[in-house]
Amino acid sequence: MGFPKISLLFLLMFLSINSYSQESNPDSTQSKMMVRIAAIEIDSSYINEYIAILKEEAEASVRLEPGVICIYPMFQKEHPTQIRLLEVYANKEAYESHLQTPHFKHYKEATLKMVKDLKLIDMNAIDTESMPDIFRKLN
Amino acid sequence: MGFPKISLLFLLMFLSINSYSQESNPDSTQSKMMVRIAAIEIDSSYINEYIAILKEEAEASVRLEPGVICIYPMFQKEHPTQIRLLEVYANKEAYESHLQTPHFKHYKEATLKMVKDLKLIDMNAIDTESMPDIFRKLN
Repeated sequence: MGFPKISLLFLLMFLSINSYSQESNPDSTQSKMMVRIAAIEIDSSYINEYIAILKEEAEASVRLEPGVICIYPMFQKEHPTQIRLLEVYANKEAYESHLQTPHFKHYKEATLKMVKDLKLIDMNAIDTESMPDIFRKLN
Repeated sequence: MGFPKISLLFLLMFLSINSYSQESNPDSTQSKMMVRIAAIEIDSSYINEYIAILKEEAEASVRLEPGVICIYPMFQKEHPTQIRLLEVYANKEAYESHLQTPHFKHYKEATLKMVKDLKLIDMNAIDTESMPDIFRKLN
């Protein structure tokens, strides 16, 4: 089930938001956030191998890096070699630091020959003040 | 700051996951989830008006509908009339029910003349078992 792990994580998020909120203004934090959609096309002969490496990298990034708020990997149902990642970083520094991690470097090297096309599309989140930002992992 | 509201929500999420997990298997829930990227182009003369209506609709959907797990609205930095929404629904029924809500119907009617192009792209989340699914709002 994996239930205790998830509950513990939510509890930790709850506690860290508590402690964070006493220190500074979340609004300024959110405005520094870096939001991106990565549009990646994979050589179909490598798709399973690619997805295994991507899952490992996404999991390690969110678990090990406080500044990686969310990496949400998807593929298009109609075109499974079309991968999309929603990536949210706490700020530019968190992203720069992410690029230097062993897990990212491994992903980049191991998948180089599998990637046919890569577009990185910088996004701005449309801030819905009254909707809690459930991606946010404050520290 | 909006801090008590956010903390309360995380606490409620934590509690509802607790109670849910005792009843059924979250894995089967996740496999029914409907994930989509909406790619919307807006007439530039309406962009501010459109964003105001979209924010209202996204906020109401997540707040009022248990089956709307996430609506995350963004625009492309380089092309601000290019809107992208990451939409996650608990299942197909939750989505069908969403289409019948007053707030969705209002959004649809009010923005009809503002939308130049709309593509709904069905996605599959790449399930990272070891990464907690922070979008999930179980009930």
